[in-house]
Amino acid sequence: MATVPLATDETAGAQALAVFADIRAKRDTDYVNNFWRALASDPALLKATWERLQAVMAPGALDPLVKEMVYLAVSVANNCSYCIHSHTAAARARGMSEAQHGELLAVIAMASQTNALATAMQVEVDERFKIS
Amino acid sequence: MATVPLATDETAGAQALAVFADIRAKRDTDYVNNFWRALASDPALLKATWERLQAVMAPGALDPLVKEMVYLAVSVANNCSYCIHSHTAAARARGMSEAQHGELLAVIAMASQTNALATAMQVEVDERFKIS
Amino acid sequence: MATVPLATDETAGAQALAVFADIRAKRDTDYVNNFWRALASDPALLKATWERLQAVMAPGALDPLVKEMVYLAVSVANNCSYCIHSHTAAARARGMSEAQHGELLAVIAMASQTNALATAMQVEVDERFKIS
Amino acid sequence: MATVPLATDETAGAQALAVFADIRAKRDTDYVNNFWRALASDPALLKATWERLQAVMAPGALDPLVKEMVYLAVSVANNCSYCIHSHTAAARARGMSEAQHGELLAVIAMASQTNALATAMQVEVDERFKIS
Amino acid sequence: MATVPLATDETAGAQALAVFADIRAKRDTDYVNNFWRALASDPALLKATWERLQAVMAPGALDPLVKEMVYLAVSVANNCSYCIHSHTAAARARGMSEAQHGELLAVIAMASQTNALATAMQVEVDERFKIS
Amino acid sequence: MATVPLATDETAGAQALAVFADIRAKRDTDYVNNFWRALASDPALLKATWERLQAVMAPGALDPLVKEMVYLAVSVANNCSYCIHSHTAAARARGMSEAQHGELLAVIAMASQTNALATAMQVEVDERFKIS
Repeated sequence: MATVPLATDETAGAQALAVFADIRAKRDTDYVNNFWRALASDPALLKATWERLQAVMAPGALDPLVKEMVYLAVSVANNCSYCIHSHTAAARARGMSEAQHGELLAVIAMASQTNALATAMQVEVDERFKIS
Repeated sequence: MATVPLATDETAGAQALAVFADIRAKRDTDYVNNFWRALASDPALLKATWERLQAVMAPGALDPLVKEMVYLAVSVANNCSYCIHSHTAAARARGMSEAQHGELLAVIAMASQTNALATAMQVEVDERFKIS
Repeated sequence: MATVPLATDETAGAQALAVFADIRAKRDTDYVNNFWRALASDPALLKATWERLQAVMAPGALDPLVKEMVYLAVSVANNCSYCIHSHTAAARARGMSEAQHGELLAVIAMASQTNALATAMQVEVDERFKIS
Repeated sequence: MATVPLATDETAGAQALAVFADIRAKRDTDYVNNFWRALASDPALLKATWERLQAVMAPGALDPLVKEMVYLAVSVANNCSYCIHSHTAAARARGMSEAQHGELLAVIAMASQTNALATAMQVEVDERFKIS
Repeated sequence: MATVPLATDETAGAQALAVFADIRAKRDTDYVNNFWRALASDPALLKATWERLQAVMAPGALDPLVKEMVYLAVSVANNCSYCIHSHTAAARARGMSEAQHGELLAVIAMASQTNALATAMQVEVDERFKIS
Repeated sequence: MATVPLATDETAGAQALAVFADIRAKRDTDYVNNFWRALASDPALLKATWERLQAVMAPGALDPLVKEMVYLAVSVANNCSYCIHSHTAAARARGMSEAQHGELLAVIAMASQTNALATAMQVEVDERFKIS
């Protein structure tokens, strides 16, 4: 039911196949998931997205599991069903426990609730929250 | 410009003042920020929100700074200006460095972008992302 | 700070002035609020929006106050600052009490929270909730 | 396709079963819907959500059907498919007629449209809509 | 799984059938898609929506394909699955090429990303972007 | 009121200044707008965003004004105030007429309305809208 065809290894062009090969090598798996197969309709967009994703999700000042949980939280708030499934799986693969998942959901729910209240009341920002 | 009055210590009722006192004690500060003063229009909602917030944000399987960053990420995706300001300040107070803030924003931006792409292409969820 | 000019009674064209006159007559006030003055940049859009609004908000199977509260709830969920202010004022003008306002906000907050949870968990719809 | 397992009466723990028993008693039905079965992965979150829901949705200054319709309107604006199905069913169970449903949808559509217009034009809030 | 019944040519009332006839005539096809069949539950809403759609999407200062692509972009940002499918099909029917589709998705992704960043940083509007 | 400092030409580091210089050269203006000055807190994010923006917005299968209008439409749907102001200005600078702006807003409003209706009714996608 996608709005673009999912490229197979047979139908993908050379540029897309090069990205698929890189995904396989970096992730140490033969599996290329549907998101990348759909993006292959536009090889330039596929390549730019894959490269940027690696740069952003690499270990840095935040550890990769924290990044995955933030990614999942944003995907929930943006209501992206595919992304919620894939990043829940990715966070679990990086070690997210059931207890951590539960607390993550509780924080997302709490934020959604107070976001709605602050917006509904149009609360003005306290001076002390502004940076000088 | 709020749509409800902000209760001062003079105008707040007894129930709201009890919550204000608890906020002051738990946070070890005399300052009660505008969100709570706005919620004081409905003391039952104020009390329920404050109590739930403490339960959710307490240290547990996730550390409090991670929880604050997730809260901030959700607030950005939900576009709550007040919440973005207050939770950026809260994350900084809990030790978020400039480098961590930068990486957090990069993850939020990346997720927003791939959320939009997966949604636009209506990518179907891979079987392997489904739990059995 | 609007992105279009606000038409005054002097700068508005004949078509827009006719709508302004109708707003004044129907609402029994000389005041035309900024939303309509901004829409006057496109008189056809102004006229279509004003006429449709009257049809939708007229008393019917739902009473006008309930309609205003639903309008406000949607405006909060969509995060439209102007709309939250104007429809909070409109609901008050139609008799919304402080207690009703508080309960309305509590329902909005509750829905926002369970919406996020159901989305995060990608809960499947129960058969019994589907119409036959 | 949920991202968490749905607890059955056999797999749920004691805390979750106590909430299920309360849901059954309060709703006078043996049926526990999927949302609660999914939340059972985190019994504390399940209990807090169920208790808060009852407090918020109880008859008060607003009648229960109005609350259900507001809940549904927020769920539509937040695009929560599960919630739209379950709260449409709940509103019907509380007596929402076909005509009321139609008017509710018309108000939601109208609000979504003027929300977008006011946002696109960045209309400034009229002084008279601000509370003093 | 719709929350309202889809009217067939047998179950639709006279008002809805008149709109169906107009859809068939204007689009030169016998096919009436599910959106209109669902809206037939409320014939007044059906008629108002169909008439307004024709006025808005008619050729004018913007050409119809551009309008379809804007419609699709908004549907993606609002995460309306039905609308994404139907307006991707409609844009293709109006001549959108694969290359144009790819660029459209790239712009939507770029905007989603910078929208999130500008919101997260709460960037203030430059004076020069304000109209005088 | 931004949550990060806006870098001036004096406080920006070498990497950020190099991007500022490129912005000035490519846009043939000395002015660097606040979005880029805010992003300078994270020079890697600044550089990646600026480079990607140029690639995406370059003339291609879609003309630059169409891209700007799509960008604006997404920014409205995502409710990004800064982005709405800056991309309305950018679209005007690329020649968007008042009539085109009006039609763009009308399409955005129409889409927002039918998005809400299709979501509220949970309309199932017609077989013919699915690609084979």
